[in-house]
Amino acid sequence: MPSNEAAAWLTENEDAGIERLMEWLRIPSISTDPAYRSECRSAAEWAADHLRGSGFEADLINTGSADKPGHPIVLATAGPADGAPHVLFYGHYDVQPPDPLELWDSPPFEPVRREAQGGVGERVVARGAVDDKGQVATFLEAMRALWETTGTAAGGARYTVVLEGEEESGSTNLEDFLRRHESSLGKCDICLISDTGMLGRGKPAITCGIRGIQYCEVRLHAADQDLHSGQWGGKVPNPLNELAKVLSGLWDSDQRVTIPGFYEGVPELSAEERSAWQSLGIDPAKSLKGIGLEPEADVGERGYSFIEREWARPTCDINGIYGGYTGEGAKTVIPAHATAKVSFRLVGDQDPAKVRDAFFAWLEERRPPGCRWELKDLHGGPPALVSMDSPYLAMASAALKVAGGDDAAMIRTGGSIPVAGLLKKILGLETIFMGFGLEDDRVHSPNEKFEIDCFRLGARAHVEFAASVADRAG
Amino acid sequence: MPSNEAAAWLTENEDAGIERLMEWLRIPSISTDPAYRSECRSAAEWAADHLRGSGFEADLINTGSADKPGHPIVLATAGPADGAPHVLFYGHYDVQPPDPLELWDSPPFEPVRREAQGGVGERVVARGAVDDKGQVATFLEAMRALWETTGTAAGGARYTVVLEGEEESGSTNLEDFLRRHESSLGKCDICLISDTGMLGRGKPAITCGIRGIQYCEVRLHAADQDLHSGQWGGKVPNPLNELAKVLSGLWDSDQRVTIPGFYEGVPELSAEERSAWQSLGIDPAKSLKGIGLEPEADVGERGYSFIEREWARPTCDINGIYGGYTGEGAKTVIPAHATAKVSFRLVGDQDPAKVRDAFFAWLEERRPPGCRWELKDLHGGPPALVSMDSPYLAMASAALKVAGGDDAAMIRTGGSIPVAGLLKKILGLETIFMGFGLEDDRVHSPNEKFEIDCFRLGARAHVEFAASVADRAG
Repeated sequence: MPSNEAAAWLTENEDAGIERLMEWLRIPSISTDPAYRSECRSAAEWAADHLRGSGFEADLINTGSADKPGHPIVLATAGPADGAPHVLFYGHYDVQPPDPLELWDSPPFEPVRREAQGGVGERVVARGAVDDKGQVATFLEAMRALWETTGTAAGGARYTVVLEGEEESGSTNLEDFLRRHESSLGKCDICLISDTGMLGRGKPAITCGIRGIQYCEVRLHAADQDLHSGQWGGKVPNPLNELAKVLSGLWDSDQRVTIPGFYEGVPELSAEERSAWQSLGIDPAKSLKGIGLEPEADVGERGYSFIEREWARPTCDINGIYGGYTGEGAKTVIPAHATAKVSFRLVGDQDPAKVRDAFFAWLEERRPPGCRWELKDLHGGPPALVSMDSPYLAMASAALKVAGGDDAAMIRTGGSIPVAGLLKKILGLETIFMGFGLEDDRVHSPNEKFEIDCFRLGARAHVEFAASVADRAG
Repeated sequence: MPSNEAAAWLTENEDAGIERLMEWLRIPSISTDPAYRSECRSAAEWAADHLRGSGFEADLINTGSADKPGHPIVLATAGPADGAPHVLFYGHYDVQPPDPLELWDSPPFEPVRREAQGGVGERVVARGAVDDKGQVATFLEAMRALWETTGTAAGGARYTVVLEGEEESGSTNLEDFLRRHESSLGKCDICLISDTGMLGRGKPAITCGIRGIQYCEVRLHAADQDLHSGQWGGKVPNPLNELAKVLSGLWDSDQRVTIPGFYEGVPELSAEERSAWQSLGIDPAKSLKGIGLEPEADVGERGYSFIEREWARPTCDINGIYGGYTGEGAKTVIPAHATAKVSFRLVGDQDPAKVRDAFFAWLEERRPPGCRWELKDLHGGPPALVSMDSPYLAMASAALKVAGGDDAAMIRTGGSIPVAGLLKKILGLETIFMGFGLEDDRVHSPNEKFEIDCFRLGARAHVEFAASVADRAG
């Protein structure tokens, strides 16, 4: 078992590994701010060097155009040629801006390693500590351990590594990159990502499903100017009244979406899944309390539990609405138009473009007399779910059990992670999220941290996973 | 007939009267801007002097407090003591700010008298030309004519004049003024206001009814923080979805307001009124075209015509709505709260406070689980309608016929003129609006104007009306 030796190496070299991570964290690779362009490249080079030091071939691939240059993508490969199982590891080296700076207890790009107050867990505090440098570092250290102890890159497993530099700024150039590298990346068998969370402290988890999304903006126009509600109220259509009326019809009394065909492709949950999720011990009342709500706020589509509604059911939400007078006090206006942002979360085989078309047709059928719609598709991405019988899911689960001693929980997320949707759409690839974050890691917030226990679990799990992949090649 | 001599005087002195108006218009009495405080006082003094020159006793009454001083109110009286019919003439000497300045063809406070292009009508162009200095000037010139030709103030009629300096900035101190002067003003028999419009060029009109208003702000709260719609969509109440659902229930399919008791106190229109309004020749398609709408936009409460819906039917309108993300592009948020501004226009004996209470109770009954309402009453004012058998209405109508040769149209407005509501509420006084504006006078807009034909008609009508009042006293 090469993994035993590599695991021992990890233990011996843990402090050095954390030092390496802290070095990476010192590079302020803020992708959204052009002032940090060279820092982004430095962070990419740092990662490429780390991978080269573990026997990978690694390059920086430029993205964007001369007019609009993007941040480079680290593309690295290791392992035997065609034939063996092939894992695509995806991560990102860019970070969110650190402001508001005054809320940090230590400077965001001067990482510190310290015991938490109350001794909850030793941690590294810095921008990017958990999202995503710290999590990517668990993979990098696993690769280092396998190289140092076996003399073979990735311990003989076949890996392609893609580290993006624009995840925090819209992944503008990722789709283009994937399409350009479709023929090589398309040969991968599975995508593995460490950029999600565990079920809780000491509770490893695999996120095996994400929801898709379709996001639209709808504007209802009436008069070509704002009107005085004294002179015009009751005489002509008020876009605010009419928009509220139309949108209110999106849900029936069971909170199901009423658009015809919306539920096509939505799979029913199996009894096994429902029972497995039930046994995870998720407490809706506790979650609700955390956001200031009473237990009576546990409402949504009838017939599904709190967590089922997030993980396995499609939704429709208004994310923004505006029109007329929105300042302090009163203004008696009937505005020329009213606008709403409406998004759908999708599951199973729901297709964002089909949902958009059905929604727009539904709106046109309900056009109030004298009004007209202006409809925009802002973006969409498909849902993604790993096959429950995927051998890689079993391998990831086994790796986590060896690394952590506990069975990994099979969870999903209600969010939409664009890269997984893209990998499915362009490469037909399933994604396994083996993540090591905790709910209180303060992702995107001041004092972001990554706990050493999580770092240790991640590195160990990646060693085990790679060893299993190598075994299948052999 | 003293009115014949006064009418002749008006003709002879018309140019001088217009010169006087232009002098008044040169004073930039912008009430909302503290920088024009002394100009407001000058404009008030100018009017008081004019009235004194016509035999009135006139004072400037300070308003507000030492902390928050208001603009003075001109209070003037003329005529015999108790017993004779007593008219309250209300007007305002303050004006709206003139911006955008670049859209004026001549400086807003340098009035010019000129022929319109195409010769539609000679006019005075300046801020305040029609709203309301020019219209008040028709009354001032009529009083001057009566004084000059009879040697008696108001030709022997009994008048109290109230000229406010805060009409364009919320009439902040008017209610307090009316309450302080309740015992004297309460003895008036009728209020006469010239601050509205005619039915069209050469078509005199009396506005004998206004709608009341109740204006509320309603906010629906759910979580104590904004939530990510991926993680939370479908799990908890979304205030935007829920607010749209609740508000959409305000109207039934006949566009009638569904709040229980809402229609209490709403009188049915008589066949005579409906037929009289029908004969006014108001063309909905033309009105709609003017605001960019097709004839199909002639929608509102079922069973009532275009103009009936404005003049005689109550309404409910959303005047503003906002919540969640309202910027460019997409943000996947479920906000902590959503807000709407909702107003009701009221008629007959509808009571703003009762409507507010019924609306708030209706909302509470529909509180979505897990949410709470924050409800604000922003302001309210009762509707006001002159009794059709009021002798003053007959006198105003006769005065307009003598002055203009045509029968005056009896019209209403769907707007809410706070002073009329206040006069009714505090003094129990009915108001007749004898106005001389035209639809294209550009009230509150650049190049505001008042046409000389309208000025002439107004001055002559005020002479006739005062003469009738004096006759009843004799």
